[in-house]
Amino acid sequence: MLKQVGHKKNVGIVGISGYTGGVLLEKLLRHPSVQVTYVSANNTQGSVSKIWPRLVGRTSLVCESYHSDRAIESCQLIFLAVPHRVSMNLVPTLLQSGLKVIDLSGDYRLNHKSVYKKYYGLAHQDTQNLKKAVYGIPEVAYEEIKKANLVSNPGCYPTAVILGLAPLVVMASKHIRSITVDAKSGVTGAGRSLKRDSLFSEVNEDFKAYKIFDHQHVPEMEMSLSKLGQKKLELIFVPHLLPLNRGLFSTIYVHLNQEMKKSDLETLYKRFYKNEPFVHILPHSPSIKDVCGTNHCHIGLTLHKSRKLIVITSAIDNLLKGASGQAIQNMNIMCGYPKEQGLM
Amino acid sequence: MLKQVGHKKNVGIVGISGYTGGVLLEKLLRHPSVQVTYVSANNTQGSVSKIWPRLVGRTSLVCESYHSDRAIESCQLIFLAVPHRVSMNLVPTLLQSGLKVIDLSGDYRLNHKSVYKKYYGLAHQDTQNLKKAVYGIPEVAYEEIKKANLVSNPGCYPTAVILGLAPLVVMASKHIRSITVDAKSGVTGAGRSLKRDSLFSEVNEDFKAYKIFDHQHVPEMEMSLSKLGQKKLELIFVPHLLPLNRGLFSTIYVHLNQEMKKSDLETLYKRFYKNEPFVHILPHSPSIKDVCGTNHCHIGLTLHKSRKLIVITSAIDNLLKGASGQAIQNMNIMCGYPKEQGLM
Amino acid sequence: MLKQVGHKKNVGIVGISGYTGGVLLEKLLRHPSVQVTYVSANNTQGSVSKIWPRLVGRTSLVCESYHSDRAIESCQLIFLAVPHRVSMNLVPTLLQSGLKVIDLSGDYRLNHKSVYKKYYGLAHQDTQNLKKAVYGIPEVAYEEIKKANLVSNPGCYPTAVILGLAPLVVMASKHIRSITVDAKSGVTGAGRSLKRDSLFSEVNEDFKAYKIFDHQHVPEMEMSLSKLGQKKLELIFVPHLLPLNRGLFSTIYVHLNQEMKKSDLETLYKRFYKNEPFVHILPHSPSIKDVCGTNHCHIGLTLHKSRKLIVITSAIDNLLKGASGQAIQNMNIMCGYPKEQGLM
Amino acid sequence: MLKQVGHKKNVGIVGISGYTGGVLLEKLLRHPSVQVTYVSANNTQGSVSKIWPRLVGRTSLVCESYHSDRAIESCQLIFLAVPHRVSMNLVPTLLQSGLKVIDLSGDYRLNHKSVYKKYYGLAHQDTQNLKKAVYGIPEVAYEEIKKANLVSNPGCYPTAVILGLAPLVVMASKHIRSITVDAKSGVTGAGRSLKRDSLFSEVNEDFKAYKIFDHQHVPEMEMSLSKLGQKKLELIFVPHLLPLNRGLFSTIYVHLNQEMKKSDLETLYKRFYKNEPFVHILPHSPSIKDVCGTNHCHIGLTLHKSRKLIVITSAIDNLLKGASGQAIQNMNIMCGYPKEQGLM
Repeated sequence: MLKQVGHKKNVGIVGISGYTGGVLLEKLLRHPSVQVTYVSANNTQGSVSKIWPRLVGRTSLVCESYHSDRAIESCQLIFLAVPHRVSMNLVPTLLQSGLKVIDLSGDYRLNHKSVYKKYYGLAHQDTQNLKKAVYGIPEVAYEEIKKANLVSNPGCYPTAVILGLAPLVVMASKHIRSITVDAKSGVTGAGRSLKRDSLFSEVNEDFKAYKIFDHQHVPEMEMSLSKLGQKKLELIFVPHLLPLNRGLFSTIYVHLNQEMKKSDLETLYKRFYKNEPFVHILPHSPSIKDVCGTNHCHIGLTLHKSRKLIVITSAIDNLLKGASGQAIQNMNIMCGYPKEQGLM
Repeated sequence: MLKQVGHKKNVGIVGISGYTGGVLLEKLLRHPSVQVTYVSANNTQGSVSKIWPRLVGRTSLVCESYHSDRAIESCQLIFLAVPHRVSMNLVPTLLQSGLKVIDLSGDYRLNHKSVYKKYYGLAHQDTQNLKKAVYGIPEVAYEEIKKANLVSNPGCYPTAVILGLAPLVVMASKHIRSITVDAKSGVTGAGRSLKRDSLFSEVNEDFKAYKIFDHQHVPEMEMSLSKLGQKKLELIFVPHLLPLNRGLFSTIYVHLNQEMKKSDLETLYKRFYKNEPFVHILPHSPSIKDVCGTNHCHIGLTLHKSRKLIVITSAIDNLLKGASGQAIQNMNIMCGYPKEQGLM
Repeated sequence: MLKQVGHKKNVGIVGISGYTGGVLLEKLLRHPSVQVTYVSANNTQGSVSKIWPRLVGRTSLVCESYHSDRAIESCQLIFLAVPHRVSMNLVPTLLQSGLKVIDLSGDYRLNHKSVYKKYYGLAHQDTQNLKKAVYGIPEVAYEEIKKANLVSNPGCYPTAVILGLAPLVVMASKHIRSITVDAKSGVTGAGRSLKRDSLFSEVNEDFKAYKIFDHQHVPEMEMSLSKLGQKKLELIFVPHLLPLNRGLFSTIYVHLNQEMKKSDLETLYKRFYKNEPFVHILPHSPSIKDVCGTNHCHIGLTLHKSRKLIVITSAIDNLLKGASGQAIQNMNIMCGYPKEQGLM
Repeated sequence: MLKQVGHKKNVGIVGISGYTGGVLLEKLLRHPSVQVTYVSANNTQGSVSKIWPRLVGRTSLVCESYHSDRAIESCQLIFLAVPHRVSMNLVPTLLQSGLKVIDLSGDYRLNHKSVYKKYYGLAHQDTQNLKKAVYGIPEVAYEEIKKANLVSNPGCYPTAVILGLAPLVVMASKHIRSITVDAKSGVTGAGRSLKRDSLFSEVNEDFKAYKIFDHQHVPEMEMSLSKLGQKKLELIFVPHLLPLNRGLFSTIYVHLNQEMKKSDLETLYKRFYKNEPFVHILPHSPSIKDVCGTNHCHIGLTLHKSRKLIVITSAIDNLLKGASGQAIQNMNIMCGYPKEQGLM
């Protein structure tokens, strides 16, 4: 294993040529407690500054084709920023070798192999670790993440939705009658692969819904919210594609079976997130531009005049709080660093 | 009055310097049955091709400061593309002089002066005509529009929402339990006046909700839908601002009190719009880009597995079907021209 | 051959699934003198309204896989909106069968096979027709186009540049010392094929130069301008990619070897384009938004205080005046229709 | 004066409600060697996190109306992010009180009051300090900045252009025959004030040139380049407005009076910037997206086949290297901090 420089931990990233991997690398290069000692990608090798010209002069790292031996000897903790299907083939060896793993793919988010098969269309190859993986939303799973060796980093939609709903679900799930989520994501959420629907001239000046009721992020949201609320919760979920690079906005309609007071609602949310540096309850509905480029989640609360309907709006940067920023937040917890280190 | 050229009717536009007025003018210049004989604007006068350089070489019209005498002597029909508050001061004289009027402002959309006052914050000055004005959605008010002298052209949100809901509301209002509209509009919907929230660097790469539950278009939607459904219908309505120029998308969640079949739903909608050239029921959810630059409304229908929830998605170009295109469609009906003339 | 409907000519489009083909089809559907009787595409067949949902309800055309027999029996004139390499294999048969052909690819723009080989990297397969093809900029080649059976429709950069320079080159080429073109194109100019550089998240909020000095449109510009100026003219040409869908802007720096007067310059340009409905000399520098969606070219002229440098700015919509609009303009001339028919 | 916390210097910002001031504040909040102790704005007061919701939870600063006494007692160094005309009224008092001042306005960029009057249209009120102000491009004026009490922070266009030209101008000005700059700026470059030309629906999907030959940044570029080249250098300068938030791209055409070799050119540039952390010579032409959000300047060099023409492309983030980032870089030098502190 590479010699540690001072107190810095050695970390690696598998999959740096995608948007998530690229943003993760850029953030980790500035993190005071770690040094990036290993980066790999599937189809691209060579100088990192050729793959990401924005890193010219900021790193001399060289991207390799993935080999578990190289990863294991170079790192103490590794981030997997690879497509689902790939992660589950890498994780067992890495965990066995004693590395901590943060997986940004969908492979370890669903704790039942049958649900995985239904939504991802293939059989899970690592059901052993599937059960042990911690679903890493730091604001609701801090203690579990602290002890975990394998953290499954949540998707971008789930992060915005779960943070928007957690206080209500934890404290008042019995009063929830229905939850409808109208969600809107920027285009980087679809990754960097070549699809007609990701072409500039298709997306720009356009807006549309897709996968109505049927997005693969629905089960992880329902699973996580049901656990938090200790009650089976179902979501009506309609995702849309926004013509912008980064940002995710959720408009969440919660019907209650009894009236609520505006002040109680706000108190509930503010208390719940009192010690959280990255979640903020605003006095107004949030804007994507205010969270873009940050690891913050902004939440707005509006009570209907009937007092039995709440509209919760929550906004995050899908590549940070919705992916790479949250992964670093998880790393900070797993390694005992300050919560916000490298993220403010 | 100006001599008519051949069979062409003389029409005028008050307020050509805004987006609605500009688009209206450009469309009318190509309309085979009318000639534009009068254009005015409040703060801008002179050659139209200086105000709208895209019309260079396409018209020699000169924009005047508004005078009712000039309008009356020049036109047989006039479009008011002015802010609310202004229209109600112009309409009485124009109607008295025998002109037909199509008002694109909000002034004549609400048939009770008390509702007007509540949402527009001032007393209505022309309650007489307020009662007579026809709310001009051609697909549901054809016969009334045909006979009208004053048509109040609906707002952009109402057009997309009413067209999306009309078949269901007309045929099955008793089964509707609740309607929630999550609506998203392009920036031209906010007009051309100078507001920080309309600055490029504020809107671009941003997305946000605004006026949650509280938009001034809510009462005209509720009024129109209740009339169509012969039952008081209320809307939960949350509008959002999209970072694009033109286009409006509504995601409408309708909860039913009994199950419905997908095929019945589609049949209901297709029959309702069978003879309408501008409304199309798609086999999938629509996209703004497919209606942008057209007077069409595209509608998608998705039934939840529970069969008691429908998601209706509808898309229009806010400046055409949501404003100027629909105004011309109304003119065509009022003047006995073919429905789609000048709009295909 | 299909029976003509009234006086309408039957026309076809090969390649309707690209942006150029799609826009061409939409425009031709509204053209009063033709009917579209044949459309084909390489990888997509079936109802046109499935390929282009914006045409739902506007056509019942069905897209076929290309067969020359079908094309020949269905049309009197055919547009080829296919990639270069493809056109030259289709053209000979079509011409032999008596069809008129308008080719929107690069295949017939360069009148020497050696230049073609150098810039397109392959041998030309139809050198016979290469020599006969008319390079179709209507404002400078009207008489030739009128008599042509094969018109090669110019590229988007060349159209903006040649129209911006033609009056000066025709009337004063001997005073031109150098021409530098800094050109900027919208993303549809790159077509609809899947390339990383065309992904939304790559292009949006970005701007860059590409193919500096080396774009394949340079030889057709130099060829055409040299012919107009009766003198060998070379261009310094740097293209850039603009983060917008449609539009092309050229900033052209012309150094002169003698002083010029502002009024002479303007007179020169206005006279040259006096009878042209689509080219307008503005009193200021143009904007893409004013030509977008039109077949117009807007030109601005600025004389440097030294009087020996002119900056010509010219703007077009790359899909209309830079491709499909110009193709229809060429068709109008070839078929004896009014110049601006179907294009205003 | 406020007690310093540890070794941190107290700094203030006048004008935090504009884009430059906002970005400056966000960056300074993370700077390890300073604490922001004073912020003011002209028309907006109160909690900073209300003015900039993206700073919620990141600062408890309160924005005041500007008073020199408060500024002087609170800070050791102050940034003026105010419009020109305003700065020159604040600077004398601040300097007299012993503060260091970094002025981001245009007020101290031109060292002759007559040139100031010509380009800014009013008489300079502080000609005394005008002469002493150091024009702060750190890569070419390091020693002067180090000793300065008043640094005039260059404009965004000048930064990109001067960095792009400096090596050539310093080492080979005698071979330069002409310099033509075709520059393109994002919309934040125009500030946050309400102008029709800054409205989303005007700028989005548009592109245009403005102030051809006549931009107020021309004299500061010519002044600075002439000083570096020890020879009077004039620029042909045409700025354009890009439809994006942040970023500035310059395409610079330099005609030489003798041939140059590609390798010599690259060596010249790489040597010149050898020790500069923020300027990078790329093997290809740069992209705005690679510098956006950073303080870096990326430069590409292309030699024409004639070897007597160079195209230099340079890209920066107009709000960072073109404004606030460079201001911090200047502060670092003035205060003896590491060059790149708070900026990597």
